[in-house]
Amino acid sequence: MIVALAGGVGGARLADGLTALRPPGSLLVAVNTGDDFHHLGLAISPDLDTVLYTLSGLADPERGWGLAGETFAMMAALERLGGESWFLLGDRDLATHIERTRRLAAGETLSGVTRDFATRLGVRQTILPMSDDRVRTLVETDAGLLAFQDYFVRLHCAPRLTGLRFDGAATARPLQALLAALAAPDLEAVIICPSNPFLSLGPMLAMPALTEALRRSRAPVVAVSPIIGGKAVKGPAAKIMAELGMTPSAAAVARHYGALLDGFMLDCVDAVEADACRVPTCVTDIMMHTRPDRARLAQTVIDFAGTLRQGG
Amino acid sequence: MIVALAGGVGGARLADGLTALRPPGSLLVAVNTGDDFHHLGLAISPDLDTVLYTLSGLADPERGWGLAGETFAMMAALERLGGESWFLLGDRDLATHIERTRRLAAGETLSGVTRDFATRLGVRQTILPMSDDRVRTLVETDAGLLAFQDYFVRLHCAPRLTGLRFDGAATARPLQALLAALAAPDLEAVIICPSNPFLSLGPMLAMPALTEALRRSRAPVVAVSPIIGGKAVKGPAAKIMAELGMTPSAAAVARHYGALLDGFMLDCVDAVEADACRVPTCVTDIMMHTRPDRARLAQTVIDFAGTLRQGG
Repeated sequence: MIVALAGGVGGARLADGLTALRPPGSLLVAVNTGDDFHHLGLAISPDLDTVLYTLSGLADPERGWGLAGETFAMMAALERLGGESWFLLGDRDLATHIERTRRLAAGETLSGVTRDFATRLGVRQTILPMSDDRVRTLVETDAGLLAFQDYFVRLHCAPRLTGLRFDGAATARPLQALLAALAAPDLEAVIICPSNPFLSLGPMLAMPALTEALRRSRAPVVAVSPIIGGKAVKGPAAKIMAELGMTPSAAAVARHYGALLDGFMLDCVDAVEADACRVPTCVTDIMMHTRPDRARLAQTVIDFAGTLRQGG
Repeated sequence: MIVALAGGVGGARLADGLTALRPPGSLLVAVNTGDDFHHLGLAISPDLDTVLYTLSGLADPERGWGLAGETFAMMAALERLGGESWFLLGDRDLATHIERTRRLAAGETLSGVTRDFATRLGVRQTILPMSDDRVRTLVETDAGLLAFQDYFVRLHCAPRLTGLRFDGAATARPLQALLAALAAPDLEAVIICPSNPFLSLGPMLAMPALTEALRRSRAPVVAVSPIIGGKAVKGPAAKIMAELGMTPSAAAVARHYGALLDGFMLDCVDAVEADACRVPTCVTDIMMHTRPDRARLAQTVIDFAGTLRQGG
């Protein structure tokens, strides 16, 4: 078994590469739910859906979110009725939110619904929310305290970030299946995917029971840098690092994760930073342009974790 | 001012004809809400939407429900996720339900939301639910007591109907604007549209305050037959009449409304039934195939009501 901790696009893409390499049922992808929110009466889990759609082969390959071939007829009609249209919901994507909302209201857990959706969409690995308990990311900014999607989507991350709060994380229980996988003696590796270390991994690592389980796990914990050449592959990671007083770099990400890591993977263009990572490193091409790129990077991560297991 | 009482398609079409003839703001269409239900977490008002879409020119001209050029991408995706797909919801139509549900949850009234939607969609007459209070049609059948949409859509009206209940109707308050219009001295006519007398008009007339207001109104109350040649123009009206022990006919509809009526309009093919209606009648072509048919029938109704006013 391999455990991957993922946020949105970058995490989903590496998880997709891992899925291609691993036998069914030998990968558990635990996904950030700090971005989850209620909007238009619907329970929306953006990162879970990105992973779900990516691993089922239904994701839009270009846009980084939502479904391929998506239409937006509901949204256009909603705008005409004066509804809120700042958070774009595709017509097919809506079915996910409508059915999830209905099942949660009927008393099912987010993990139960997610497992079922994954099965129905043909995903052969396990996708789970980091927790069934509510954790909500709040962004402290120069424009005040903002709900995550207000900051991320409505305001396009424009406000200057001064801090993050993960409401509920202190008491949220990581999913039991995740804790069990981390404690299993045959766990091969924990992979922290190249998602935003603050916005995507932050909510997960803010759960004390999860960081404790990662520390106790006998498997190597390996992170893949979301920063290449001082820039985020996607999203506001570099901007946020600068606003938090760090110089955006792969090594700064490695030091941010700190003692949690047994290994760190950074891109060839950042090879000179390897020593500054203060942890064993693997330097490779970590950019995932194509689906074969995902499997290639996944294989390199697995191999790197293997060397760390033997070394440790 | 003219007041029209309407259910779904037939009512909407005559209301559309009246809209074409009347100056803006001189027609109030009060719509059945007994069919309203919650489905997939959404507040759905089928008859209100049929009237709204018809009067805004957005209705599908063939299907009798929903929007022209509608797509069903959400529904197909929902089916794939194992969701309930027996009640078809189009992608554009969804926006109406999502926004209505949100606004009702925020404390707005159904009438307030309906007024606003009508304005936004360019409707120049007033469309209102019969009441802001909850009335729910329950169908007593040989298959047990059924919620309306279970009977009407899921089971295609197949069970034998033995009775109807209008839950909440005894205490529901008809909309104040409707009562005010009925009491106004300059009211020209009340038109009971050719909708199902039991399923569509039944919930309205089950509100004692509404029948009382109709009786007190000084304007003639005129109904248009939904039955032509012993058959319903659309829907299960004839089937239901037979199940309730009536011979389906225009005259039977007139006698069903009874003392409420000052006049009744029936089709040329039913001319021999005029005497059996036990109320002044107007025999005309009441089938509405085209939009000009709607305006023509509307003009005939207005003229007929005019003769009744002068006679009374």
